[in-house]
Amino acid sequence: MQAARLHEYTDDMSQGLEIDDIDRPTVDRSDEVVVDVEGAGWCQTDNHIIEGMWTDYAPQDLPMTLGHENAGIVAETGDEVTLVEEGDPVICHPVQTCGICRPCRLGEDMYCENSAFNGLTTDGGFAESLLTNERAVIPLPEGVDPTEIAPHADAGITAYHAAKKAVRELNPGETAVVIGIGGLGHIGLQCLDTMSAADIVAVDRKDEALELAANLGAHHTVNSSEEELSSRVMDLTDDEGAQQVLDFVGADETTATAPEMVAAGGDHHVVGYGGNIHEPCQALVNGEFSFKGTLVGRYTELQELVSLVDRGDVELHTERHDLEEINTVAERLEHGEIEGRAVILPP
Amino acid sequence: MQAARLHEYTDDMSQGLEIDDIDRPTVDRSDEVVVDVEGAGWCQTDNHIIEGMWTDYAPQDLPMTLGHENAGIVAETGDEVTLVEEGDPVICHPVQTCGICRPCRLGEDMYCENSAFNGLTTDGGFAESLLTNERAVIPLPEGVDPTEIAPHADAGITAYHAAKKAVRELNPGETAVVIGIGGLGHIGLQCLDTMSAADIVAVDRKDEALELAANLGAHHTVNSSEEELSSRVMDLTDDEGAQQVLDFVGADETTATAPEMVAAGGDHHVVGYGGNIHEPCQALVNGEFSFKGTLVGRYTELQELVSLVDRGDVELHTERHDLEEINTVAERLEHGEIEGRAVILPP
Amino acid sequence: MQAARLHEYTDDMSQGLEIDDIDRPTVDRSDEVVVDVEGAGWCQTDNHIIEGMWTDYAPQDLPMTLGHENAGIVAETGDEVTLVEEGDPVICHPVQTCGICRPCRLGEDMYCENSAFNGLTTDGGFAESLLTNERAVIPLPEGVDPTEIAPHADAGITAYHAAKKAVRELNPGETAVVIGIGGLGHIGLQCLDTMSAADIVAVDRKDEALELAANLGAHHTVNSSEEELSSRVMDLTDDEGAQQVLDFVGADETTATAPEMVAAGGDHHVVGYGGNIHEPCQALVNGEFSFKGTLVGRYTELQELVSLVDRGDVELHTERHDLEEINTVAERLEHGEIEGRAVILPP
Amino acid sequence: MQAARLHEYTDDMSQGLEIDDIDRPTVDRSDEVVVDVEGAGWCQTDNHIIEGMWTDYAPQDLPMTLGHENAGIVAETGDEVTLVEEGDPVICHPVQTCGICRPCRLGEDMYCENSAFNGLTTDGGFAESLLTNERAVIPLPEGVDPTEIAPHADAGITAYHAAKKAVRELNPGETAVVIGIGGLGHIGLQCLDTMSAADIVAVDRKDEALELAANLGAHHTVNSSEEELSSRVMDLTDDEGAQQVLDFVGADETTATAPEMVAAGGDHHVVGYGGNIHEPCQALVNGEFSFKGTLVGRYTELQELVSLVDRGDVELHTERHDLEEINTVAERLEHGEIEGRAVILPP
Repeated sequence: MQAARLHEYTDDMSQGLEIDDIDRPTVDRSDEVVVDVEGAGWCQTDNHIIEGMWTDYAPQDLPMTLGHENAGIVAETGDEVTLVEEGDPVICHPVQTCGICRPCRLGEDMYCENSAFNGLTTDGGFAESLLTNERAVIPLPEGVDPTEIAPHADAGITAYHAAKKAVRELNPGETAVVIGIGGLGHIGLQCLDTMSAADIVAVDRKDEALELAANLGAHHTVNSSEEELSSRVMDLTDDEGAQQVLDFVGADETTATAPEMVAAGGDHHVVGYGGNIHEPCQALVNGEFSFKGTLVGRYTELQELVSLVDRGDVELHTERHDLEEINTVAERLEHGEIEGRAVILPP
Repeated sequence: MQAARLHEYTDDMSQGLEIDDIDRPTVDRSDEVVVDVEGAGWCQTDNHIIEGMWTDYAPQDLPMTLGHENAGIVAETGDEVTLVEEGDPVICHPVQTCGICRPCRLGEDMYCENSAFNGLTTDGGFAESLLTNERAVIPLPEGVDPTEIAPHADAGITAYHAAKKAVRELNPGETAVVIGIGGLGHIGLQCLDTMSAADIVAVDRKDEALELAANLGAHHTVNSSEEELSSRVMDLTDDEGAQQVLDFVGADETTATAPEMVAAGGDHHVVGYGGNIHEPCQALVNGEFSFKGTLVGRYTELQELVSLVDRGDVELHTERHDLEEINTVAERLEHGEIEGRAVILPP
Repeated sequence: MQAARLHEYTDDMSQGLEIDDIDRPTVDRSDEVVVDVEGAGWCQTDNHIIEGMWTDYAPQDLPMTLGHENAGIVAETGDEVTLVEEGDPVICHPVQTCGICRPCRLGEDMYCENSAFNGLTTDGGFAESLLTNERAVIPLPEGVDPTEIAPHADAGITAYHAAKKAVRELNPGETAVVIGIGGLGHIGLQCLDTMSAADIVAVDRKDEALELAANLGAHHTVNSSEEELSSRVMDLTDDEGAQQVLDFVGADETTATAPEMVAAGGDHHVVGYGGNIHEPCQALVNGEFSFKGTLVGRYTELQELVSLVDRGDVELHTERHDLEEINTVAERLEHGEIEGRAVILPP
Repeated sequence: MQAARLHEYTDDMSQGLEIDDIDRPTVDRSDEVVVDVEGAGWCQTDNHIIEGMWTDYAPQDLPMTLGHENAGIVAETGDEVTLVEEGDPVICHPVQTCGICRPCRLGEDMYCENSAFNGLTTDGGFAESLLTNERAVIPLPEGVDPTEIAPHADAGITAYHAAKKAVRELNPGETAVVIGIGGLGHIGLQCLDTMSAADIVAVDRKDEALELAANLGAHHTVNSSEEELSSRVMDLTDDEGAQQVLDFVGADETTATAPEMVAAGGDHHVVGYGGNIHEPCQALVNGEFSFKGTLVGRYTELQELVSLVDRGDVELHTERHDLEEINTVAERLEHGEIEGRAVILPP
């Protein structure tokens, strides 16, 4: 089958992946599942993997097929699988967990001690078929299209996961700031809107992104290339600050806003990760705020997000591309030219 | 009356404060309380205030009497005060709150929008008498000595506040690391020990501090000038890391240990604040850990801490000094020569 | 001034209260506030007070003016009041708290050890003016009409308080059941809808109430006089049960549904209180569910509810009546003839 | 092999079970584990099962081997099991969960939709060997004796589970009441003591039980056959009441104490289940307290409890009996003649 694989780390996105012809995966263990991919989302993290930015954090054997936002149709199942059968449409959580270690037993799929992460530590879904396991697949409700929902497998649950943490701390009348209305941000914003009664301030440097944000429920929008973000937020909140900030950019300049605009006791959630935090300890102490790292969401959170999609509470802005265009997609994302999320279709 | 006052910011601790003769405070509002001070703890923050390190965060009118860790005997009360009367021994929360603003109504005393902070934004307790209000005083149980308990008013509740946040996340068999076994750390350690069944690792660069820690309940001790802290913690936790780290130092090198030794989903609580955080966003994302700023505790937390003291669960290591020795105390703390906490006695 | 007062407990609602001419209240303490009443909601609890049903729980000195859902215009303030001044429109939390006791310090207004409850333990708002204090009043945002919002002071925050507890436990795709779509229920339902992404099942015995529920956001409606409630809920939830049930009726037959339709680990919130719970302990153990009593909400929750009203997320169905009609209102509520909430207007 | 099996429901404990000779279980699925039993605790629930009290709640096929508190040595493993191997000492969580359904994914083992419960819905451990699965076994730390620890598999984690819920709500200076210092209660008390700084009041009708309680850390003891429990608790708490009550008896008269002695906002945890709750809804509303059903704990909670045992924080009072004495044990428990917990040893 055809698969888009990484052979060598590079900063040149125009030739990041090669389309190889490799063997179709087959089931070996009793709990494995092969899925024929119907759509696989392209993620900023794919660019980062190609650049070699994850080698310190996750073991990688090249060549490897990328693609961690996958959905499709079950093609084969191990002999003890009961959740799905051949022909079922599914979305795939990117992490195949063991179900045995303590983090798994606590529901913390992302901390599994024996996991494989499609497209990051094992072959992913920019291919005709994907090998995963029963604990990673979620059957789709009738009427939900696998190609359409694929990016929720990572962009979606990462945004949902951050939003869910924030919602727990948000009372009506309080303020949430969403920085970066891209692939993740436009989902996070909708999750906040449907799961809380907070005032939402959307922040981006592109006016089209802010228009999208306004349509999706943002109560205020700030173009941070034109306005000073933190003073605007202080104005909007009667100088109290925002109780929760979801930073889908994670640049030096976005983390630097925290001491100036996070309310006392509030949180700056670090979701995007291009840049750094540089902050005196005294700033955190004085404002008693936190920088909270936030990772991909749990399997059960993907179930919850599928419910939101099924209810029509969260819509995804996607554009579709064939597998052979994959390096063009990578380049366009690098230049900020993708609206919403690109989905790669296998041949 | 005599009071130790700051007239000018300086880095020279040997002449930080002057002993002035000023008017004794009197009650003006219906809720005010005058306390004859029996003891006032000297805090690292006093050194920081003298250095001018708080001018950006809190408005200060010099000259001002320092001292925010106060306890004593009620001398006068406003005409609507019911909680205490003349002659009652009390410990004083450092913040006089309004009881009206939303943070006060939520129990978040430290975020009060109309507060005065003794020894930071208004006169403090390095004096014969202190002006405070009904919402700031806690009657002491019989047998508890005001001079002895005074440092709990700030060192104590700051350490308790951090420990209480950590305890909520600590299950039996999990690990808490306490960095810095000084005035705050030796209290935080005891709070962790009595309020959880976590394994406690105490960290300091002085062996005497580590001996104290072992006596107070630490399960393991690490001299970080001799051993590499994070690799030791990983060894002690089977490579899982510590779920909670209480950093009472807050230096560049202590915050830098977080990505290496905080368990997935865990927290590095920033209590001390001499230094900075410098960290790539990706580190927080990958380990899904947080840097949590932590401030002085709430009034109700001081009540809880007084209960712990009354039960004998938390003991305080203090040394007593007369008011005229106050600059010597400041200098000795600067050089790390105070064991536990110095308490200043009024004349 | 005129005031509707209870002189004697009775089951005959047609003569529950008498319109007396009494002295207008004046400010005595530094924190007191007199409010000229613009509207006061009539509550099922008023009927219960007239029947003597609260004598075991709250001390009452008859004659007493009833009325605990009050809003109006500030007429006079004590000399240390800063939050409001003469002429300000306010809604009044029914409980005047001390701000000093530990429950107050925790934000738990309802557990205040020195409180007075308008219309239950001290004079209430079925009168021209009401005596309350600074800690009980909330300034209204511009454009919010005191007469219109009055019932939120108790019906509203009681419903909001229960809904907020439920929301914390409700994930997208999970189910909340609201039993009784009357004065409280129709508010609780809207709070659930705006603060969560749960599926809401509205239950009543009157079709008009269910129509209202559907218009206000209920996803399913059940007429419990025609259908078996618990089997219907089990059908709607794939036999999982409802994670949260808000019981605004509190009758024997509503509490009896819990073992049959509350999901494992879920809650049956007891808000209404006409009847009883009769249940074997084994039922609670086997389903690991809880019966949670729920009282009037906190001051800060009333602030949050005012925000929801201001945003247009919660609308109140009211009908207005003059003070002299007050016993007719009591009778009509007794017979289930009030739609939404009756508001009493002073002369 | 020999196994003590229930053939018919009966109230006559002297002949509840029969010792049968049946086939030794063998591994069939890839995740199964056979354990050679070293000890199996006898539980009040065993008496209830024999009486037929669980037939409405759990499907049962008689004859069935009872015994849900098991520990022993791994004898055989399915071919995909990695957590344990032949010869490993383990304690067995009573529930074999699927790891696939949503409750399992949330860590809620007890709500698994595809579970088997040893000794309740499938064969248990009053036998030479037990069939269970990888997700139900926990390897024991070196030096922990399987026979000694066996009762923790159910009595232990049920008590721990209730205590953990209570601890989350208990601040220093607040009060927890433990009703019933038997097999579960004496463990629950120790868990409260090591995991919180609350004051613990132990309640029983036998003085020996109260002596044990005092030795294990209770701060106060009440013999409820001699003193009125609720008035004693109100005295001990300055009329505030107990924030948390753990009711290991669950009789009509123990649940009836809740309105009189649970503090506002507090909880009465229903763990024992012989009797009923009869309470007016108004009592729950007025005190805003909850009746919380509490079931067996989670797998991860059993891990945490094993840590407490390993630290020496929780000790278990047991007496050992041979398999043939099993009906005598049942009778003695029925008459309240077992101190601590009886452990059955296979031949």
